[in-house]
Amino acid sequence: MLPIAVVLSGCGRGDGSEIHESVSCLVHLSRLSVPYRCFAPDKPQSDVINHATGQPQPESRNVMVESARISRGEISPLKSLDPTTFSAVIFPGGFGAAKNLSSFARDGQNCSVDPDVQRTIKGFRSLKKPIGLCCIAPVLAAKVLGTTAGGSGCRLTIGTDEQTSTAIKAMGATNVPTPATDAVVDEANQIVSTPAYMCDASIHEVYTGIGKMIDAVVALARRV
Amino acid sequence: MLPIAVVLSGCGRGDGSEIHESVSCLVHLSRLSVPYRCFAPDKPQSDVINHATGQPQPESRNVMVESARISRGEISPLKSLDPTTFSAVIFPGGFGAAKNLSSFARDGQNCSVDPDVQRTIKGFRSLKKPIGLCCIAPVLAAKVLGTTAGGSGCRLTIGTDEQTSTAIKAMGATNVPTPATDAVVDEANQIVSTPAYMCDASIHEVYTGIGKMIDAVVALARRV
Repeated sequence: MLPIAVVLSGCGRGDGSEIHESVSCLVHLSRLSVPYRCFAPDKPQSDVINHATGQPQPESRNVMVESARISRGEISPLKSLDPTTFSAVIFPGGFGAAKNLSSFARDGQNCSVDPDVQRTIKGFRSLKKPIGLCCIAPVLAAKVLGTTAGGSGCRLTIGTDEQTSTAIKAMGATNVPTPATDAVVDEANQIVSTPAYMCDASIHEVYTGIGKMIDAVVALARRV
Repeated sequence: MLPIAVVLSGCGRGDGSEIHESVSCLVHLSRLSVPYRCFAPDKPQSDVINHATGQPQPESRNVMVESARISRGEISPLKSLDPTTFSAVIFPGGFGAAKNLSSFARDGQNCSVDPDVQRTIKGFRSLKKPIGLCCIAPVLAAKVLGTTAGGSGCRLTIGTDEQTSTAIKAMGATNVPTPATDAVVDEANQIVSTPAYMCDASIHEVYTGIGKMIDAVVALARRV
């Protein structure tokens, strides 16, 4: 089986990848003996948040360099990700997905998506290879594959958050409310999502839901 | 049951807490429905490592502020940790344990240990409350409770690394070689350890061994 790509967006929920979600993705891939490789955009973060206070810090950090903290050093620039050499792609959540991979945190349904993220999502989709998403990251697929982008739309979950659900609908995708311990599979589009910390969930519930998401992505990838 | 304290040392294996180990500790505590609270020294990190290159970065970061990335914001200064109000304490690994919580990375067996870490380990030990340690963190207990510090020594594991094993012996403690999927329980001293990434292990093996460590710590804590 070809390895699975994991796209990180920094290191920490406030300005990068949500750490619990990212680690849960890696543990479950490893549990299934699926090789993986981590990628991240090699560019400055949108901002740096002091996670003890929640306030911005006046400094600059690089998305890929910080993501390497989660991957223990092994990381490649997202620009180099070639969908033909991977069997699936996974996007953990965290504000990094809405600040560094897209501008969703600021612009909502009118957000722009990082060009390499767009290319990645379109590339895996056109090869009919599965895409797994956690937490707020489903907005990336909603934007890139939604009917308003000329796509066919897709079914995904960001839990029960009304504002995000409305934005997803406006982008031409459908939100399927689901608890953190579960995942939603859009078989037609090979998109699997789990709401993770979009729900008010404890860490082991997030871990469980991500396990279901990874199980489904790997099952779909083995069929390709 | 009183909550369990988790002592972090930054965010990232090269200059802080190993992220996979820290998250595994939190998932397993949550799985057992044990409340936890995270602590870290409120002081500058010993250094900042670019995890993509492995090289030092000329900047300064605070141990507690960076640790808050792992704990999703909830963090308290280690100085405020009162062992009478917790049922056990857990130390994940990572170079932060050997750079920020002690000087082991530089000084080996002659290392010094952060005064609040010393107070924490001695406090839990004197109350006969369990102490759980991952990876390189057992050197903290070896140093603070070893015979050379006037203690009675203890049995712990850092896997099979010879240099660290020799240093632990010199500090008056005993290393019990163990694979990453297992944990060593020193019942007499209420110390539980697992080698985690001291072994050449995959992430789900580290997760499994930490699960055994947390299971044993919680079982001991329920007996107190």
